[in-house]
Amino acid sequence: MLTVAEFDILAERVNNWKRWGAEDQRGTLNFLTPDVVRRGTASVLTGETFSLAMSLSLNGPQNGTGVPGRINPVRTMLAVNTPMADSPDACAYSDDIVVTPTQAATHWDALSHCSHRGVMYNGVPADAVDASGATRLGIETAGTIVSRGVLLDVARHQGVDRLPGRFAVTRAVLEAVEEAQGVRVEEGDIVLVRTGQVSYFLAGDVPGYRRPVPALDHDAPLFFHERRAAAAAIDNMPMELLPSNVEDLMLPVHVLCLVMMGMIQGQNWVLEDLAAACATDRRYTFLLHATPERFLHSTGGLVHPVAIR
Amino acid sequence: MLTVAEFDILAERVNNWKRWGAEDQRGTLNFLTPDVVRRGTASVLTGETFSLAMSLSLNGPQNGTGVPGRINPVRTMLAVNTPMADSPDACAYSDDIVVTPTQAATHWDALSHCSHRGVMYNGVPADAVDASGATRLGIETAGTIVSRGVLLDVARHQGVDRLPGRFAVTRAVLEAVEEAQGVRVEEGDIVLVRTGQVSYFLAGDVPGYRRPVPALDHDAPLFFHERRAAAAAIDNMPMELLPSNVEDLMLPVHVLCLVMMGMIQGQNWVLEDLAAACATDRRYTFLLHATPERFLHSTGGLVHPVAIR
Amino acid sequence: MLTVAEFDILAERVNNWKRWGAEDQRGTLNFLTPDVVRRGTASVLTGETFSLAMSLSLNGPQNGTGVPGRINPVRTMLAVNTPMADSPDACAYSDDIVVTPTQAATHWDALSHCSHRGVMYNGVPADAVDASGATRLGIETAGTIVSRGVLLDVARHQGVDRLPGRFAVTRAVLEAVEEAQGVRVEEGDIVLVRTGQVSYFLAGDVPGYRRPVPALDHDAPLFFHERRAAAAAIDNMPMELLPSNVEDLMLPVHVLCLVMMGMIQGQNWVLEDLAAACATDRRYTFLLHATPERFLHSTGGLVHPVAIR
Amino acid sequence: MLTVAEFDILAERVNNWKRWGAEDQRGTLNFLTPDVVRRGTASVLTGETFSLAMSLSLNGPQNGTGVPGRINPVRTMLAVNTPMADSPDACAYSDDIVVTPTQAATHWDALSHCSHRGVMYNGVPADAVDASGATRLGIETAGTIVSRGVLLDVARHQGVDRLPGRFAVTRAVLEAVEEAQGVRVEEGDIVLVRTGQVSYFLAGDVPGYRRPVPALDHDAPLFFHERRAAAAAIDNMPMELLPSNVEDLMLPVHVLCLVMMGMIQGQNWVLEDLAAACATDRRYTFLLHATPERFLHSTGGLVHPVAIR
Repeated sequence: MLTVAEFDILAERVNNWKRWGAEDQRGTLNFLTPDVVRRGTASVLTGETFSLAMSLSLNGPQNGTGVPGRINPVRTMLAVNTPMADSPDACAYSDDIVVTPTQAATHWDALSHCSHRGVMYNGVPADAVDASGATRLGIETAGTIVSRGVLLDVARHQGVDRLPGRFAVTRAVLEAVEEAQGVRVEEGDIVLVRTGQVSYFLAGDVPGYRRPVPALDHDAPLFFHERRAAAAAIDNMPMELLPSNVEDLMLPVHVLCLVMMGMIQGQNWVLEDLAAACATDRRYTFLLHATPERFLHSTGGLVHPVAIR
Repeated sequence: MLTVAEFDILAERVNNWKRWGAEDQRGTLNFLTPDVVRRGTASVLTGETFSLAMSLSLNGPQNGTGVPGRINPVRTMLAVNTPMADSPDACAYSDDIVVTPTQAATHWDALSHCSHRGVMYNGVPADAVDASGATRLGIETAGTIVSRGVLLDVARHQGVDRLPGRFAVTRAVLEAVEEAQGVRVEEGDIVLVRTGQVSYFLAGDVPGYRRPVPALDHDAPLFFHERRAAAAAIDNMPMELLPSNVEDLMLPVHVLCLVMMGMIQGQNWVLEDLAAACATDRRYTFLLHATPERFLHSTGGLVHPVAIR
Repeated sequence: MLTVAEFDILAERVNNWKRWGAEDQRGTLNFLTPDVVRRGTASVLTGETFSLAMSLSLNGPQNGTGVPGRINPVRTMLAVNTPMADSPDACAYSDDIVVTPTQAATHWDALSHCSHRGVMYNGVPADAVDASGATRLGIETAGTIVSRGVLLDVARHQGVDRLPGRFAVTRAVLEAVEEAQGVRVEEGDIVLVRTGQVSYFLAGDVPGYRRPVPALDHDAPLFFHERRAAAAAIDNMPMELLPSNVEDLMLPVHVLCLVMMGMIQGQNWVLEDLAAACATDRRYTFLLHATPERFLHSTGGLVHPVAIR
Repeated sequence: MLTVAEFDILAERVNNWKRWGAEDQRGTLNFLTPDVVRRGTASVLTGETFSLAMSLSLNGPQNGTGVPGRINPVRTMLAVNTPMADSPDACAYSDDIVVTPTQAATHWDALSHCSHRGVMYNGVPADAVDASGATRLGIETAGTIVSRGVLLDVARHQGVDRLPGRFAVTRAVLEAVEEAQGVRVEEGDIVLVRTGQVSYFLAGDVPGYRRPVPALDHDAPLFFHERRAAAAAIDNMPMELLPSNVEDLMLPVHVLCLVMMGMIQGQNWVLEDLAAACATDRRYTFLLHATPERFLHSTGGLVHPVAIR
């Protein structure tokens, strides 16, 4: 169990405030240069594409016990085959509308999703998020997100389909997987961490998916920081161990990534098919496209990430 | 003015029903092979990325006069800096929820968006769309959408910032632009047609954006068909001339693309920055990522398209 | 267990089709004459008022297992103390928006809520309800609902705080309670049936509230029919026994009341305080105001019923 | 034009803070005693009922130019004739869901709707309303609202169908109408002020309805205060003259009623039919039921008011 003081030392080690200027809102996405994009493009060999998103429906991963109001998406029809004119030769149209939390299923946490001791990334006051939304650090500040993706398949490395509940994905684990896979996370890469947990969800077992999960331990952000990753995503809901191994702090990884590093993090990503393909030819890098929907001032980024190998 | 009979002949010319089997729901997206994806990837030179999406907010392009209920997105907060625990060292989180039509701003029309004489693409009965949504031809059948994009900058070709209202983008116009640009649309490419109309919207002028627009004429789908395009998108709201030049049929392009060809079409795309870059070095091809959010059974595809040059 | 044939005979006994004309959409609410309203008014002695509604919030009775999409209401803020002008002397306003099923909590079923063998009340085809809503028999056809209310406190009559699960409130039970209470339901009265079940909900026990409930048995509508009640409401969710005692028919009371009689029915009503007051002075009649919100073409009627003694 | 200093004197004259204790949240609704309810009941002679609510639909009074996000209600279907079982003898159900601002159409302003110089009624700090809603002074604190209603038909008194735009309904006007009608507002009555403006809306003319309206002038609250009215409502959208006749203060009536007096106010009420009936027999009092839906912590009260004569 880390004490508060020890956590604060850890937090300072990954602090990126002012690194890109006092007004910066993009954090580690600043690593996303055209060179990085080209490195991503260069990793494409076969042209195969992989969807990394959950389907959005009432059968989503929400069960009413987490954030109040974070429901599964409700999609209904505005029109069903409404004729455009009276003629039998006219055409008809159908149209729909959705009510959805921005973090209902596969998403990015915006930097405005989390505050700690009254501030967010780069020292932005927490009250820059108010009832009107994130007046700073909203998801629209992320811009386009295209990079080389690197899968770290922790489950496969451990020889299991999915890691056991509360398995701690530490910095050392990430380093070991990286080395075993013969890959190296470089500046601007986006790291996808596979625990296998999402297989519960894909099998229709939401309670199983939400049980105490294998997830990042509090020192995992050190790994992202040292590698200068642009972002990281995982195939479970909370990203990190719950409860955490830090005194008085429920979400240390959130604080380290979002608040200290300015690094957005992805949750509820579906990595099963991609991981199977990577294991086949032992290539763990790919072009990753993961630009979120630009709902202005949103603290979450609805996204349909796609990997191209 | 085309008669109904003449339109029917045109419709037969572009008919793709059964081309990919009686059960096919993906239409021209079947052209999206790994080879096509690699061709897209190969078109990346600089690594520059371009967002092609409108921002999603109450300042969107909807004005209440189109499809009933197609409002601009309403995003509100579920939580604002809610502490995770009592300790001053705890962190706090913010969260939001949106109500949005799937076709509120930048989107794909799913093949289920339109029916004609009681059927949709591949002869699927129109009543496959009901109050529960599109039980067939929903946006989830599109899968991932990654390809080479080709910009046809009609406005620049005409020497204007934006085409005049009701300018007809015919098949001949598309061919002329293609030739003048020195580019050739190939099988599986996604064609982006620029009219310049979206510049009204970007300038905050929604009424201007919605005035009678320059758009596709009814024979433009012939161009997409002959080139075997995977999809097409445009920078205005209706895609096509309103009113149309076809007797008794308000949306002939919709019928030809969605119903006859099985080709999804994109609307409200933002092409200004991309077009400026293309004009600079006269390269009109790029890697295009445009995978829609997978709301199950949706007739529209909310999407944040990104071009990479 | 009633057979289908026996049920059909029962259905004919309560059939009100054409009773108020072939075009009637109001059914037994036609009993609500000015005379009935005055009889209601005359039942007011003390002037005490009783709210019969659940609070509307995320802590409502929905748990995700019933009708897909019937969520608990989500209320969020559109504005929080937004200043109307720059001056310190200006005022500020706050505003909110809700997403709510019309049947989320305390509500009326509109006559369009239920169809049987392809028809609704008065033989209206079931397809008069389509994706646009109830083009006939929508809640707006109910008009104002003011009458004398009569409480039949079955739980108290049985000497319990709440009836045991699956207790069958039959016609005979209703008659016995009526007699024991020394009251007589008259033409146009609205009957409130108390099982005590809602006390689970009031205590915060939603699973308890939704467990197999004491409710109306299939012959209870005979009682309402013979008394010529204008409407009936109950303090549980399903109104009737689940599973029912009728072969192949899950909701016989719904069919008898809504489809055959044209009588709207109320669910999730809170009768505890009212019942306590009635028991004190043994007066079981009161003025009841229960006009639903007039969402056009809605199949359900959100309502805040109030009793005045 | 009233100066700020003059307004402050006016505000003090109507100040009800602490009148019902330092913790009171109900303000002038405290006047609603059982005696008042009985007085209301006693005013019923014929038993005729009058709906005072607008219909709730996309054709509501909102036009996108007022409060951001205050849209017209969007109602869609969750189910349309979904069979409850496989048998042809099974029944089917339909169900719907709405997205609606609480102040979209006919409503009460809760006391939390408005703050002035950082406080609300009874000195409650404005920040008691936050992103979670009105933690104090929410609409749920209103409880049941039943009283004697008194119509003051200003339009008829002026001999017009509707008052001209910007007609100022002053305290003197209200007194004159009261006297001319031969009625006297008593403690606990709810005053309904008719301008005739809602006739535009009923005729489908939303722009007309929203044009500069006849409305309350800043001294009208003095009338409500002196009479000890429990609440007041009007048949236009803003309640009061826009712009106001007070320096630097856009909504002086809101401040006087909601903040100083603790008196909820009703807007967008439909008074045409009721007024016609009152004029016929010159009886201007009636029983009024106007209990809002109890959305917890809401700043607005969706309501279907009903008058009984």
